[in-house]
Amino acid sequence: MLNGQIIKLLKEKSGFVSGEEISTFLGITRAAVWKKVKTLRQSGYVITAIPSKGYRLVKSPDIPTKEALQAVFTGDIIGREIIFYDVISSTNDKVMEIGATRSEGTVVIADAQKHGRGRFGRKWISPAGVNLYVTVLLKPPFVPKEATLITLMAAVAIVSAIRDFTGLHAVIKWPNDILIRNKKVAGILTEMKSDMDRIEFIAVGIGINVNMSLNMMPHTLRSVTASLKSERGKPINRVELLGAVLSSFDYWYKNILHGKRHVLLDTWQQLDSTRGKKVGVRMNERVISGIAQGISDEGELMIELHSGAVVKVCAGEVTLLNKKNHF
Amino acid sequence: MLNGQIIKLLKEKSGFVSGEEISTFLGITRAAVWKKVKTLRQSGYVITAIPSKGYRLVKSPDIPTKEALQAVFTGDIIGREIIFYDVISSTNDKVMEIGATRSEGTVVIADAQKHGRGRFGRKWISPAGVNLYVTVLLKPPFVPKEATLITLMAAVAIVSAIRDFTGLHAVIKWPNDILIRNKKVAGILTEMKSDMDRIEFIAVGIGINVNMSLNMMPHTLRSVTASLKSERGKPINRVELLGAVLSSFDYWYKNILHGKRHVLLDTWQQLDSTRGKKVGVRMNERVISGIAQGISDEGELMIELHSGAVVKVCAGEVTLLNKKNHF
Repeated sequence: MLNGQIIKLLKEKSGFVSGEEISTFLGITRAAVWKKVKTLRQSGYVITAIPSKGYRLVKSPDIPTKEALQAVFTGDIIGREIIFYDVISSTNDKVMEIGATRSEGTVVIADAQKHGRGRFGRKWISPAGVNLYVTVLLKPPFVPKEATLITLMAAVAIVSAIRDFTGLHAVIKWPNDILIRNKKVAGILTEMKSDMDRIEFIAVGIGINVNMSLNMMPHTLRSVTASLKSERGKPINRVELLGAVLSSFDYWYKNILHGKRHVLLDTWQQLDSTRGKKVGVRMNERVISGIAQGISDEGELMIELHSGAVVKVCAGEVTLLNKKNHF
Repeated sequence: MLNGQIIKLLKEKSGFVSGEEISTFLGITRAAVWKKVKTLRQSGYVITAIPSKGYRLVKSPDIPTKEALQAVFTGDIIGREIIFYDVISSTNDKVMEIGATRSEGTVVIADAQKHGRGRFGRKWISPAGVNLYVTVLLKPPFVPKEATLITLMAAVAIVSAIRDFTGLHAVIKWPNDILIRNKKVAGILTEMKSDMDRIEFIAVGIGINVNMSLNMMPHTLRSVTASLKSERGKPINRVELLGAVLSSFDYWYKNILHGKRHVLLDTWQQLDSTRGKKVGVRMNERVISGIAQGISDEGELMIELHSGAVVKVCAGEVTLLNKKNHF
């Protein structure tokens, strides 16, 4: 916590900050400040120290640690507790494991995942140092079927943050993919523990391909995958992007807790990539196709069939149908 | 496994069974048979052994251990693995903990629970030696909202087994209570781990008040609680009742896996205690009242309001409204 506050203070002042000012601000001794600066340097921060002037932050490592994140982001609910791992099996697995005993808003971040997962148990490519792998713990007072709202919310939060922070035109593909120029740049994996009456807790996993080179992806996925760097042509600061995503997440979560679900649903519809287009939806062994008509109030995808009938789909895999791409 | 088979064999033959017959049947030596008989005696079985005649089962302890249950019940799916504890915190907690790595149909049984739970985190009175506390692990290929079907199925299985085995007129109170003469004798607590596409696993907790004296219940609950013994006036064999419940459970689970959901729903409607009666439903802070009209295809309770409109309720607490009982 204090390390994060030192970084925040040094970032706010572009020049030198005296050891006295830092020690007064944090309520610790100047010797303790010096000790913390040494720890920060070990974590990759470049901090100049000149006895007569104080400390100056020259360079931050772009690693989404607790301290780095706390220097750029404060949420009302999200981020009450932040846990960072250099490497973990899966951030969702960790939150599903600890969810019952941790407070709502806990965020688990890993620089790399050994067994990152996507939908249907598929592998999520999770190399170190380049992307974001984050899971947020939520405990909304919802019945289980309202969990869909949380996935919709996460999609809106990620798309808004990517647009604001990079200028790239990100869109949502129902239910949990984020695309840029029809290529996947981010995904959401929402898992929960519940009984029939209420959700006990939800793990909202977010994976964003930030600075990954596409040659890190398997050949078969390169034509359908992108990273923010590959789309924008230059690297993105991971820590600041994560701060933007979690700020947006915090904003929207408070909104839906306070009954403004229709605002979220309206925003989702505006960011929807498939509305009005011909899509195929694969559900286990069945496939249906028709024109996507956005989502229902329950978050189901609505498909207008050739007959004119509209069906609602609560789970399935959507493919945009065009000349090249048929079931 | 072998211990259960010895008990089964001794139960099938009412007289003596020779050591040779048992050893041939199980494919173990006669010395090994003798050793297993000694273990069974330690568990409370009374087994007479006469050198020239063999073994005879005089009395079984009424404890729902793995061996005892295997002697009276074999399911196709349910009971593939049986785990018995003298005492445990909660059988549901155990299944939620081990569910990902155990096979479907695993049954966890405890003779007593330290922290037995019902709906809304309420305490489930769980003394040793008198009742049944059982959780079944299922992995149905269902989307999360279909989990409701599992609670409906458990209710039908329990009511059928109680009726068949005791002759008592048990009925269902939506969603998860089993009543006799309007008093609760059993409850179901369905919990699950899921993502948006599918259920990973479900823990179906079943608590049945079998031979409990009502003075074991808190004063405040005595007027609304019963046990099978208190209703029938004589004790019930717990092991055989559990065998009947799990047989019924196995039967209905196979039915719904093979698409016969409408048969289950029809059966449920026939066992419904509130249909056509005036009920109140409390949902968080809201209360509605009207005439119960059975359940929808999704397992929601349908209530006809005074206006004639029918509303569906997916979670809530139902109270039968009569002269004595108003919100």
